[in-house]
Amino acid sequence: MTNPNDPSLTSWIETGADSDFPVQNLPFGIFKTQSSSPRIGVAIGDQVLDLAIMNKLGFFDKIKIDNSVFTNQYLNDFIALGKQTTSGVRDRISQLLQSDNPELRDNKEAQAKVLHYQSNVQMLMPVKVGDYTDFYSSIDHATNVGTMFRDPDNALLPNWKHLPVGYHGRASSITISGTSFHRPKGQTKPNEAEPPVYGPCRLLDFELETAFIIGKETQLGDSISTANADEHIFGMVLFNDWSARDIQTWEYVPLGPFLAKNFASTISPWVVTLEALEPFRTAGYKQEPKVLPYLEYSGDKNIDISLDVLIQPENTEETLVSHSNYKFMYWTMEQQLAHHTVNGCNMNIGDMLASGTISGPRPDSFGSMLEITWRGTKPVKMKDGSERKFINDNDTVIMRGYCRKDGVRIGFGECKAKVLPAK
Amino acid sequence: MTNPNDPSLTSWIETGADSDFPVQNLPFGIFKTQSSSPRIGVAIGDQVLDLAIMNKLGFFDKIKIDNSVFTNQYLNDFIALGKQTTSGVRDRISQLLQSDNPELRDNKEAQAKVLHYQSNVQMLMPVKVGDYTDFYSSIDHATNVGTMFRDPDNALLPNWKHLPVGYHGRASSITISGTSFHRPKGQTKPNEAEPPVYGPCRLLDFELETAFIIGKETQLGDSISTANADEHIFGMVLFNDWSARDIQTWEYVPLGPFLAKNFASTISPWVVTLEALEPFRTAGYKQEPKVLPYLEYSGDKNIDISLDVLIQPENTEETLVSHSNYKFMYWTMEQQLAHHTVNGCNMNIGDMLASGTISGPRPDSFGSMLEITWRGTKPVKMKDGSERKFINDNDTVIMRGYCRKDGVRIGFGECKAKVLPAK
Repeated sequence: MTNPNDPSLTSWIETGADSDFPVQNLPFGIFKTQSSSPRIGVAIGDQVLDLAIMNKLGFFDKIKIDNSVFTNQYLNDFIALGKQTTSGVRDRISQLLQSDNPELRDNKEAQAKVLHYQSNVQMLMPVKVGDYTDFYSSIDHATNVGTMFRDPDNALLPNWKHLPVGYHGRASSITISGTSFHRPKGQTKPNEAEPPVYGPCRLLDFELETAFIIGKETQLGDSISTANADEHIFGMVLFNDWSARDIQTWEYVPLGPFLAKNFASTISPWVVTLEALEPFRTAGYKQEPKVLPYLEYSGDKNIDISLDVLIQPENTEETLVSHSNYKFMYWTMEQQLAHHTVNGCNMNIGDMLASGTISGPRPDSFGSMLEITWRGTKPVKMKDGSERKFINDNDTVIMRGYCRKDGVRIGFGECKAKVLPAK
Repeated sequence: MTNPNDPSLTSWIETGADSDFPVQNLPFGIFKTQSSSPRIGVAIGDQVLDLAIMNKLGFFDKIKIDNSVFTNQYLNDFIALGKQTTSGVRDRISQLLQSDNPELRDNKEAQAKVLHYQSNVQMLMPVKVGDYTDFYSSIDHATNVGTMFRDPDNALLPNWKHLPVGYHGRASSITISGTSFHRPKGQTKPNEAEPPVYGPCRLLDFELETAFIIGKETQLGDSISTANADEHIFGMVLFNDWSARDIQTWEYVPLGPFLAKNFASTISPWVVTLEALEPFRTAGYKQEPKVLPYLEYSGDKNIDISLDVLIQPENTEETLVSHSNYKFMYWTMEQQLAHHTVNGCNMNIGDMLASGTISGPRPDSFGSMLEITWRGTKPVKMKDGSERKFINDNDTVIMRGYCRKDGVRIGFGECKAKVLPAK
């Protein structure tokens, strides 16, 4: 069995040097065509492989999975089979797509049944999200926010370096890339001396994040150690944590963000497995002061994922507004999961845990308009000549993410959504 | 058709003056017996009526509901039938249980199949909770907390009287009454000058709350008005929002409570329908300053629900520590729901929205140990002679709730859980 991450592997399906989906990636998602019901697919190049038909045609015969797992509107039941099985499926797909394997390559009849161009299918929410948690784990982001709103000399709150601060978010309003939404309305207090007012949010922002998806459940009372955390992480997606800054400012004391966040979040459709990301692990921040033992970890646990944010005003081209990287995270996913369960909080398959805004150290790597324009004081220029302090009606925000090493590039596809005017 | 809330109704099943479940209540829940799978039941006196068998025997023939709705581990599919149908089922059950109706009364064979003593069945989670939100809507509670931790002269934060402050909580750790849990462990900072420490929570508290369950979904972008809110509320349960005060103090800035809450919440098993609660509506607080138009409402929207909290140390009798009332709420459920959706946040059937701690104006009506013992400065005496500042290992906390008017008493049953020592 070859290692499916081997940089030397090539596929008989042309993938191109800039494709997000070479044979080393093989992310899972849910798609449907005009004539098919929702089912599990794997991305390869600009195509998607229909796992339900693959299974029916006997390509996974040695793995033995009931086809209802594949003809499903969510990945949850598939993920629940366990990493040994899901990795086995990825390994088998890798084998079948490798240049020298004739099984599917030379079977045009089967290819016609199992391959679709991505442009011809509709991607759906990959998982049913039970609970969604958002962290606040980028030190540059937390420092920027603390500097703007509190005290530049004490930008980080006392707890920040001792635990990965997090809070619960709304699962129901997480939507798949391509889902437009209306600018939220709500209560804000634009004038300190006047009563609050009701109306459309004026300071609509994106937050560049990633999220990981729970792959193995725990029972109430159980904790997950940093050493075991990876067993519980199925994979990752890009995550846009849309934020209404003016609603947040007025509502969030003392119990945290609520309506400023729960009107919409957008995720990318392909779940990139933790296995596919392993070659791109990199060292994390040196954590000083030393963390408590339950948060200690060993090895390289950050991941080098380039992250781009682009704004596309209506009918014009995209403008890059941020180029960040997941490696800038102070707290790792393994620490986030260990902290989240240290009190016995139970995890379910499909639960989504987001990183918090991922800002790098330089202004061109900040992960939100709040930081990029420094509260609107430094507007950014679009290619069409217009300026942005925050996000305008009919703007589309696009996030892209990819890892690159040893000549291999694996990506996440797009996380994209358009803001419609308030209803 | 008689009004099922009519105080003059009696049942051929003996219910007793102090029963929570007279024929005027008829709450829905999920139960199983030693020999049966989970199914929907309705409480009557000290018995439970098996709706799956009732339907099979033809007692609901005019309503026509597929039996899979009743032989279900959650109420969600039943609730999704809509209020016209679920109220129709309640009306029909009321009819069948009324003293003068012979259909079931005189059919001993059917009775043997459809009635179980509650003491012989196991109650299960009534709904699959998608998202759980907790509000902070009791003015006495917010004032007490603000007085203790901030400024007695400005106890309420500036936003408190303008909007029902709320935050997202963890759905996965909501458990059914009777589920014990281990004292949570976590990070606290007992000494201001020292680094944080890891260990069992020392200040474990209950919070006396109720929660309402969403009965009609909305799509992303939709808002619910206060006038339409009741259409979207299926019913209510008692809710113990267990809280680790020392964990909360250290973690909650700036994004709100997280591990201090998500280790366990406990609910009562019977969902009392909004229809059954209607006779007990009462006037709410006069809201000054005037709220924004989207939060205005008309009519009596508070509900007179007596609420008791008792602590039972191991192997001894219960001690009443609080006698509060849901009528003390400043913000109504209708306002909470209008606020929650003003930004287009979508609601799903089974979503749970809790009140926040319900404290009354007097110390004996405070809804948490934090308030009752005023941060531990005024311990309360148990009947066995011991004292409590917070909740000890092996203590059981019991909440009970009931409405009483015109000789009718309808109740919620118990919300009860025991705290086991830290693992």
